[in-house]
Amino acid sequence: MAWRFALMIDPVASGDDRADYLDTFTELDPAAPALTVGELSTQRGDGIFESIGVVDGHPQEVSAHLERLAHSAQLCDLPEPNIAQWRAAVALAAERCGAGEAVIKLILSRGVEHGPAPTAWVTAAEASDFSRARTEGIRAVTLDRGYSLATPAHAPWLLLGAKTLSYAVNMAALREAKRRGADDAIFTTSDGFVLEAPTASLILRRGSTFITPAPNAGILHGTTQLSLFEHLVSRGFTVGYETIPAETLPAADAAWLVSSVRLAAPLVAIDDAPLAVDASFTASLNDYLLSPRD
Amino acid sequence: MAWRFALMIDPVASGDDRADYLDTFTELDPAAPALTVGELSTQRGDGIFESIGVVDGHPQEVSAHLERLAHSAQLCDLPEPNIAQWRAAVALAAERCGAGEAVIKLILSRGVEHGPAPTAWVTAAEASDFSRARTEGIRAVTLDRGYSLATPAHAPWLLLGAKTLSYAVNMAALREAKRRGADDAIFTTSDGFVLEAPTASLILRRGSTFITPAPNAGILHGTTQLSLFEHLVSRGFTVGYETIPAETLPAADAAWLVSSVRLAAPLVAIDDAPLAVDASFTASLNDYLLSPRD
Repeated sequence: MAWRFALMIDPVASGDDRADYLDTFTELDPAAPALTVGELSTQRGDGIFESIGVVDGHPQEVSAHLERLAHSAQLCDLPEPNIAQWRAAVALAAERCGAGEAVIKLILSRGVEHGPAPTAWVTAAEASDFSRARTEGIRAVTLDRGYSLATPAHAPWLLLGAKTLSYAVNMAALREAKRRGADDAIFTTSDGFVLEAPTASLILRRGSTFITPAPNAGILHGTTQLSLFEHLVSRGFTVGYETIPAETLPAADAAWLVSSVRLAAPLVAIDDAPLAVDASFTASLNDYLLSPRD
Repeated sequence: MAWRFALMIDPVASGDDRADYLDTFTELDPAAPALTVGELSTQRGDGIFESIGVVDGHPQEVSAHLERLAHSAQLCDLPEPNIAQWRAAVALAAERCGAGEAVIKLILSRGVEHGPAPTAWVTAAEASDFSRARTEGIRAVTLDRGYSLATPAHAPWLLLGAKTLSYAVNMAALREAKRRGADDAIFTTSDGFVLEAPTASLILRRGSTFITPAPNAGILHGTTQLSLFEHLVSRGFTVGYETIPAETLPAADAAWLVSSVRLAAPLVAIDDAPLAVDASFTASLNDYLLSPRD
């Protein structure tokens, strides 16, 4: 992976309003040691993150990502992020991304064990080449996420709507998918409803309607999905949130996994059920997602 | 927290047998930057760990911890740890712990993103003072872990029997317990069976019998619980593993949360049900746990 930039952030309180936040940033060599072994992000996955797509130096959907960062912070009892400070850090990182596709990661950790304050940093790196996934599509398998549709609402300590650094299960699900000959996974509830992919949202097409699982406390509200729904509405399509039984997946006219960096990857199969891919329509979605979006 | 020691480990293959492994160790300043921002432990909680109690320089139950590290590695598709190498690192760290109680942490991370190999390190630090929890006891609340008793066996990608670095939920459960005026939590399944605490095992006493939840794939097999069971058997008690309905918790004659560093903390209440504390018996358990054990 080609790093482009890394910055440590000294988090200031929400509401600390300055002309710029340059005195709170320290640029790093991304390949050099920067974090101590006491970091709770590394000891316990105790923190939150966001991944922002960047196209030719333009960071996409920054406000939606920063809003979700603030939402995750609230669910995890972390201090409220200073949005203006994070926005300034994203802008600096984006300037260093250069041409082509890149990814900016924002990380807010609970800090060093017994330390006084959270630690925070931003990285920028060249994105992997996802052109094949976008055009030829991907295969997914459904995997049980272990909890029922009703669980997240009564068990907020499971942090199911927060984008935490505790992603070991998400990574294990991707390995399981690969073991089964697929490229990605779609999590389902133990009572058989569709949730999300480990690092993407699911969008299904039925005729001229596009649906995605209802973003209750159990899944993240996908920033790319939100942006695509706006785009689809502007093109005259209908969009909606639904509780989707997994058994209805094969009946979709088409389906995509959408995320900030891979963008829209059409599904060619879910489990053993093949799905049709509309190549030119998918290309139009990715053209939109590659255009500058705020 | 008073650090005592930190060591980076260059993991060698299982079976690489040497007189010592000193050439694979690099001592660190525990308070200095040591890890890069590309570390997958910090980005995704993608790795495994163990915490070993140390008393007056003697690391407790090292073999049981190393066996569990190897088991976690297998569940997480990490390379098999070289046990002799880790044992040598633990011995070095223990030498640096000095008098009193300390904790040695072993961390095996999947490595740096797109990197060639896992990263690994060991830290040693002074332990917190848990004498009050050991003598006066602690209050616990039960919290739903969200999955049913049957889930772990059919969904290994949930990594429920692995001690991963993705501990954000464990930490959130402890915060929830504190919000409710308790000191700790006891996880239960969605169908009402007792599991474990976020960082400890539960042992219940019924007359002269001591039981703990069956260590199926859903919970860790506690090293301290294993050691205490051996000790209890040597004292003529009966021990056993059971599937324990949460509703039977108040009927226990006594209960403890046991772990490698806090050792045996008697429960004075679970939810709103008070439990009797046998102070001298608990003291005898902690005397045993503070004695040198291999």
